[in-house]
Amino acid sequence: MKIGVIGAGAIGLYFGARLQQAGHEVSFLLRRDYDAIRRNGLTVHSVNGGFHLPQVHGVQRPEEIGPVDLVLVAVKTFDNERLAELVGPLLQQGTAVLTLQNGLGNEELLAELFGAERVLGGVAIIGANRGEPGVVHHLALGSIRIGEYTGGLSERTAQLATLFNAAGIPCEAAADLRQVRWEKLIWNIPFNGLCTLLQQTPGRLLAHPPSRTLVAEIMTEVIHGANAQGLLEPIPVAEMVATQLEKTGQHTANYRPSTMIDRIEGRPLELESIFLIPLQHAARQGVQMVRVGMLYALLDLGEERRRG
Amino acid sequence: MKIGVIGAGAIGLYFGARLQQAGHEVSFLLRRDYDAIRRNGLTVHSVNGGFHLPQVHGVQRPEEIGPVDLVLVAVKTFDNERLAELVGPLLQQGTAVLTLQNGLGNEELLAELFGAERVLGGVAIIGANRGEPGVVHHLALGSIRIGEYTGGLSERTAQLATLFNAAGIPCEAAADLRQVRWEKLIWNIPFNGLCTLLQQTPGRLLAHPPSRTLVAEIMTEVIHGANAQGLLEPIPVAEMVATQLEKTGQHTANYRPSTMIDRIEGRPLELESIFLIPLQHAARQGVQMVRVGMLYALLDLGEERRRG
Repeated sequence: MKIGVIGAGAIGLYFGARLQQAGHEVSFLLRRDYDAIRRNGLTVHSVNGGFHLPQVHGVQRPEEIGPVDLVLVAVKTFDNERLAELVGPLLQQGTAVLTLQNGLGNEELLAELFGAERVLGGVAIIGANRGEPGVVHHLALGSIRIGEYTGGLSERTAQLATLFNAAGIPCEAAADLRQVRWEKLIWNIPFNGLCTLLQQTPGRLLAHPPSRTLVAEIMTEVIHGANAQGLLEPIPVAEMVATQLEKTGQHTANYRPSTMIDRIEGRPLELESIFLIPLQHAARQGVQMVRVGMLYALLDLGEERRRG
Repeated sequence: MKIGVIGAGAIGLYFGARLQQAGHEVSFLLRRDYDAIRRNGLTVHSVNGGFHLPQVHGVQRPEEIGPVDLVLVAVKTFDNERLAELVGPLLQQGTAVLTLQNGLGNEELLAELFGAERVLGGVAIIGANRGEPGVVHHLALGSIRIGEYTGGLSERTAQLATLFNAAGIPCEAAADLRQVRWEKLIWNIPFNGLCTLLQQTPGRLLAHPPSRTLVAEIMTEVIHGANAQGLLEPIPVAEMVATQLEKTGQHTANYRPSTMIDRIEGRPLELESIFLIPLQHAARQGVQMVRVGMLYALLDLGEERRRG
């Protein structure tokens, strides 16, 4: 299959590399890593065994990729105003557009631009960082959950799940994309938010009783916000909070959420997709996520300072 | 009158100096400023005209002060476990103990230690900082509001108000000390909290719309917490919030709250008196101050980091 990867952060590079390794014809739209990958190819260090791709089709302009069968969208959401120019040149009849970006609002935007029938969304459950240019580090997990923007299980989601699974990317097709998105937010909102604000790891937050309580309270707000959306399977509040706290302590205590790294490296934060749009969707259903709103205000003030 | 000042931060030094200037026999318990004041006396730079006291009775042990008529307590509340040893040696029959410390819980503690009948509380409305040792800067305002711990207007509060006014310290005696304390918290909780957490001045917070909204929401929570205490005069919510926002923008936009300075200088924060005890008092009356609780958790995590 011809696949175009838009956004060559850790997520785009890792999944794209796996797909190329499995025999697909993958093109990468690159920025920082362009020179290094043209010269030396792409190296993946992975908990599942590393590999090197000596020949990688990396370009700097989307027109150089041209029409493909599948677009993987993995740009940071603060660059979403560029999606029209970045994705447009890759489309032909039947091209599917799968966004693996964080938070809410990305499928809506792609649907407005290119038509709802093209659009799928996915959530990556992975710990991965970029290394020096041309190198990506896959540290933990590595699966994805995907779904149709318009809802329901389709033949296309089943085929894509098969394709990903065959490429060493465990993939589950879900009938309710909103459920997939909101379940991810139950982790992202408290930990991306608090770790960024306080520059502390999840493990440090969980070891401090008032912060651990605050994490649980924020998760509870998000679950209420989620359930108000009329998900196919309502999320059990206490059980989900307990599971998330336990799994975080076991697996990602020392993980630095992407937003925390964004702030350290002076990039904008993905506040709109991870915080503001979820707040709006919850409020629209009558749920005020008070602590989430406060977290958003606190983070946004830091953004104003960065913008100077 | 014989007066002992316990705690020689900006508040203790400034009010003590005014009282000595007015002819009272004032003793100061000193730590950082001991050597400088013994050598050179105490210098007050003041918006109302500065002055110098060449002879100041500064000591390092409370026993060297001995019994007085009035004790002014102005130590940081994180040192409250030392109040018994610091204040005890100054007491004789009839000694009044007036705490000018921040937040709630200070009068209760003094009452437990020395008897409720001795205890008064006061709120200082002043902008003042310590300079180099032996120097205090009085930047703005400078009045106090005092009241009996046991409530009501007494002959003693009237006499103390007269004494302070005669010393150039505008002073109002209030019938409901809890009202005085809570009204101060309407400013201290949002601004001491948020300015410390974000290392921004009040003016910067008010200029950022989501933060300005957050300040107003926190003030609203505190006013609900206050009114639940059954104050003599319930506080009108919208009117008080509007007044506080306006006055802050006019007078203290560039002021650094004491807690913000405490964090900058690596001291503990007064979290218990300004946040935790007010949260408990509100909760006891059925008011959950959700944003205040979140602010407390966020600040306390920084404290844990400081404590190492």
